[in-house]
Amino acid sequence: MAGMTRRLLPITHCNICGTPVETMVPPGDTHSRAVCPACGHIQYQNPKAVVGSVPVWKDGRILLCRRAIDPRHGKWTLPAGFMENGETATEGAAREALEEANARIEIEQLYTLFSVPHISQMYLLFLARLVDLDFSPGEESLEVKLFAEEEIPWDELAFASVYRTLEHFIADRRTGVFVARFGDIRPPER
Amino acid sequence: MAGMTRRLLPITHCNICGTPVETMVPPGDTHSRAVCPACGHIQYQNPKAVVGSVPVWKDGRILLCRRAIDPRHGKWTLPAGFMENGETATEGAAREALEEANARIEIEQLYTLFSVPHISQMYLLFLARLVDLDFSPGEESLEVKLFAEEEIPWDELAFASVYRTLEHFIADRRTGVFVARFGDIRPPER
Repeated sequence: MAGMTRRLLPITHCNICGTPVETMVPPGDTHSRAVCPACGHIQYQNPKAVVGSVPVWKDGRILLCRRAIDPRHGKWTLPAGFMENGETATEGAAREALEEANARIEIEQLYTLFSVPHISQMYLLFLARLVDLDFSPGEESLEVKLFAEEEIPWDELAFASVYRTLEHFIADRRTGVFVARFGDIRPPER
Repeated sequence: MAGMTRRLLPITHCNICGTPVETMVPPGDTHSRAVCPACGHIQYQNPKAVVGSVPVWKDGRILLCRRAIDPRHGKWTLPAGFMENGETATEGAAREALEEANARIEIEQLYTLFSVPHISQMYLLFLARLVDLDFSPGEESLEVKLFAEEEIPWDELAFASVYRTLEHFIADRRTGVFVARFGDIRPPER
């Protein structure tokens, strides 16, 4: 999850022409925006989507990555990261599995959505099949490892979205029915 | 869905200090970014989430809005629009129902996710309960109306994401099991 600390700085200049912007609600809009008085360009700032997966091996073990970067350096996470322009949500989730764990996955279903409004982020996690065991730590991971249910390091998980997704997964596996869920994460929940 | 035409202009200036930017892959990154040579600020551009709902009245009819704005002026759509910073996905979906149809909804479940990579957008639509019949066109709607299954204006729907979501909904209603789905929308599909 590279860049989970990306800051939201107040916009002060037009990113098209460089002129100092004015903050105002444009006609027909409901929200305040950074508007350029010179060229008229409006800079919209919208929540960023973090896309990722629960990669499951055929014996039921789950692939987790131990973070080599801040925030939550040293903590365990599901492979996930910011969705990029030009890609689909599932392409982004597969790319992150490859970048963080050199792992190939096949997306199976949409599983959890968590909004984190205080940092304007949204997590979208898919259930996925881990295709082979040829995985290894990517640049952003110290370690990647398969965990059986009783081995999951609950106290060492990096993010609330990861904790809750794994909780749902374990519960759903008992019933055999995997149900898509949504929720919100507010401070001070990690 | 105000602003569905928001253009992705190439960034040429730093939006913090106004200096002309350089386009480069920052150290540790995998994608090209607009980087400021003066203050070091990196402008990330990520896909925008459009959040909305399928508002269902207790008799099974579905609320649709006829668009008063471009694109697809005059076509029918589900209430949806760009998610804003500081809100959750479900808050955004409820806000859009209120803005476009003066309608109060209660979100019930996560239903469809459609990625539209060629315009770097992602649709997230929830199943929702329409709370009362006191709805009316908002500024972005010409008309809002409840549609029974056989009345849905399939040839007059505004977006592929709306078409496919309604298709899934009608199919799921026959089985009584509403399953979250994901998919991609590519040109030239509308």
